[in-house]
Amino acid sequence: MSDCTFIIFGASGDLFKRKLFPALYELIAHKKVTKCAIVGAALDDTDMATLIERSRDFIKGSINEEVWEHTKACAVYQRLNFARKDDFVALKKRVENIERKLGLSGNRMFYFAAAADFFCELTQNVAAAGLAQKKGANEYPWHRLVYEKPFGHDLAAAKDINECIKQHFDEVQIYRIDHYLTKEIVGNIALVRFTNCVFEPLWNNRYVDNVQIVLSESIGIENRGAYYDRYGATSDVVQNHMLELMALIGMEMPPQLTGECVREKRAQVLKHVSVVDGIFGQYDGYRQEENVESDSNTETFVAALLRINNPRWAGVPFYLKTGKYLHKKETRIVVKFKQVDCLLKACPRNSNYLTISIDPDSGFSLTLNVKKPGTAQEVIPVNMDFCHSCLFEPFPPEAYAVLLEDIVRGEHSVSVRFDEIEDAWKIVDDIKAKQFPLYTYQKKSSGPKELEDFNKKHGIRWLT
Amino acid sequence: MSDCTFIIFGASGDLFKRKLFPALYELIAHKKVTKCAIVGAALDDTDMATLIERSRDFIKGSINEEVWEHTKACAVYQRLNFARKDDFVALKKRVENIERKLGLSGNRMFYFAAAADFFCELTQNVAAAGLAQKKGANEYPWHRLVYEKPFGHDLAAAKDINECIKQHFDEVQIYRIDHYLTKEIVGNIALVRFTNCVFEPLWNNRYVDNVQIVLSESIGIENRGAYYDRYGATSDVVQNHMLELMALIGMEMPPQLTGECVREKRAQVLKHVSVVDGIFGQYDGYRQEENVESDSNTETFVAALLRINNPRWAGVPFYLKTGKYLHKKETRIVVKFKQVDCLLKACPRNSNYLTISIDPDSGFSLTLNVKKPGTAQEVIPVNMDFCHSCLFEPFPPEAYAVLLEDIVRGEHSVSVRFDEIEDAWKIVDDIKAKQFPLYTYQKKSSGPKELEDFNKKHGIRWLT
Repeated sequence: MSDCTFIIFGASGDLFKRKLFPALYELIAHKKVTKCAIVGAALDDTDMATLIERSRDFIKGSINEEVWEHTKACAVYQRLNFARKDDFVALKKRVENIERKLGLSGNRMFYFAAAADFFCELTQNVAAAGLAQKKGANEYPWHRLVYEKPFGHDLAAAKDINECIKQHFDEVQIYRIDHYLTKEIVGNIALVRFTNCVFEPLWNNRYVDNVQIVLSESIGIENRGAYYDRYGATSDVVQNHMLELMALIGMEMPPQLTGECVREKRAQVLKHVSVVDGIFGQYDGYRQEENVESDSNTETFVAALLRINNPRWAGVPFYLKTGKYLHKKETRIVVKFKQVDCLLKACPRNSNYLTISIDPDSGFSLTLNVKKPGTAQEVIPVNMDFCHSCLFEPFPPEAYAVLLEDIVRGEHSVSVRFDEIEDAWKIVDDIKAKQFPLYTYQKKSSGPKELEDFNKKHGIRWLT
Repeated sequence: MSDCTFIIFGASGDLFKRKLFPALYELIAHKKVTKCAIVGAALDDTDMATLIERSRDFIKGSINEEVWEHTKACAVYQRLNFARKDDFVALKKRVENIERKLGLSGNRMFYFAAAADFFCELTQNVAAAGLAQKKGANEYPWHRLVYEKPFGHDLAAAKDINECIKQHFDEVQIYRIDHYLTKEIVGNIALVRFTNCVFEPLWNNRYVDNVQIVLSESIGIENRGAYYDRYGATSDVVQNHMLELMALIGMEMPPQLTGECVREKRAQVLKHVSVVDGIFGQYDGYRQEENVESDSNTETFVAALLRINNPRWAGVPFYLKTGKYLHKKETRIVVKFKQVDCLLKACPRNSNYLTISIDPDSGFSLTLNVKKPGTAQEVIPVNMDFCHSCLFEPFPPEAYAVLLEDIVRGEHSVSVRFDEIEDAWKIVDDIKAKQFPLYTYQKKSSGPKELEDFNKKHGIRWLT
């Protein structure tokens, strides 16, 4: 454990309000950092107490008011223009002041909770002001830089950003993060696959019929119009969360289940992904959202058929589906197994499938056929369940709290390797180049009605 | 559905009290027979009302008093000496009387709830009195004869009994039954194995480490001393229930999941079983039980190591364990899978296993390793559960009720084929010939303490 100054760029934004401050509070409440300071920076004319109070509703469980007040007491806000170098010099003074005042050792985490367009500029200005210095793995106090997903908006941009930040800092200081990878259930996927004997023999094109990865959101773009309209669903969640999940399902067995070995195997999957077909959707009313172009063709929904071209997965379709303003909030992976030969008079309608639930509840469920009670020759589907959320009292740790703690500990496996990001962008660029048709859909529906034709065309039966 | 006269030999015994009458009541209450008569026959000087009232405590759920009284009204008791031919002639008159009185068509089920020693004599006397006639599959009214397990007390006796009854009746009239096979969960084993894609690839010596079949009873021999002392645990439950379970686990895929195809595949398993080693136990105080020899060496406990010598199971030990007066009542099958290569710093202690619970609760449970919450490199075992009992409201049908209903319907798959019985007796004779050492054990314990040495010798780790 070490102390740390958290410097958050974009502290007046949604991410700070919903995720980062609640995560910082959790770290402090659970004594995961010895001492810390929080320095928020953004363009808005506000103050830290106001920003912090906005987070109250996003704290899980009851708030310990003593810890809450203590957390507020070690947090300051600094107005700052991302483009103005002088502001970074002023920020540096502020940081040094609070570190001195609180007796901190000078470990600093720079969290860029901003659009990727600003990553290069922010990094350059942080470097120019001497807020952070280039340091090796064992140089203290440490300076670490954290880049929120998505890293860039296409392959070319991602490369440019990476070039830019590598000029100023060492790879060991750079964290390109996807908070999905720190979710307990997501971290569980590789462990469950490779520490149990019962999955690996089934985990291939001989037994798997298809894989479905679905990330449904019931909310819209909220006040992120400017960002979202430029990115769309594909860059916002497919490029990172969904392709990471696909890589975890598709990866080969690593020699060890360490972060680096798993990342290596994940990266290899993405190198062999091809895009077959897809369909885009945009929810009705999207063009009227604030900061969205009135003739925007940005997709808020995407369903796509992908393949992994290697011996294990040859012939197995991977279906991805995600959207805003759908009728439910749910993130799930379904591994659908093949039908067995029918040995009954009344053949089973369903073959087995394993559901990995990620959100809102997490767990595993295996859908099996069993004898229909009181009959000899009929089966019904039932579930064998394991509730992962239930392992945690009162609830699983917040992914962002795990993330921040891991970065404080210098755990590099929470960072996505740049080659993985590159390969994910290649896939996204491929999706965009294919120019899938765009259809409107009603809010709170299950997507555009044209999805049915797409399903028919490819024989898709969604199970989630 | 058809009407039926149930003629129960041994109606004053435990089986009638605990199982058969409650099953008959269930059939009538659930209208599984249109009309019926119950004729109890035994040596005791008693009456039907008394015998029926003894069953009250063994009815599941609340009793419908109207049905209860109706059931009593169509039941009569006839004193009868199994050896006296005249008694059977009297019984015939009684049966004809009640059938006439109740307007029954003359379908008759003869249930021999007696020791196998009486099977031949009973059958001969039933035939001689003309109570039952030799009839083909489609001759009505039908006459069916039901022989409780165990069928004989060794291979030679079983063959003699079979020869005897085949002289008088057609195979299609003969039901050698094991009520275990009519338990919903037991009937489920073959269906679950062969209507799901996820089991068969794992169900062999490449992935299965061992199979454990355990039938623990918490009660003693009760008032069955004379019978039990002659049979012992091996003939009482291993020969039938446990070897049938082993056959269901070990069987190859049948071309169809019909009763006959499953029986054929079950039978093939028993032909390839060999006995490796074992240990006997006798509970302390057994020799003082009523009708037990004071120097009896009858085993009330047996643990044995068996093998199935075929390509699928070569090298996989099958462990069987059963006993009276143990610390718990439980029937379970455990399929223990092999350990995977360890890819973690902290290797998983347990490999996966599938538990099939049969008694007292029924269901499936798969024990898996998952990430220990909050750690990256440790796993803990958790269960994925499916509660089979829960499918039934308010409880699963009584095995004997299913059995009687199946026999009324002429469903022959509830009958064990004679070659299966022969092969099971060969295995039991082999166990007896091996003269396992006999040790005393305390009541309510987990068996003789010498079991530990046996476990060590064979590297056995019981999971149930």
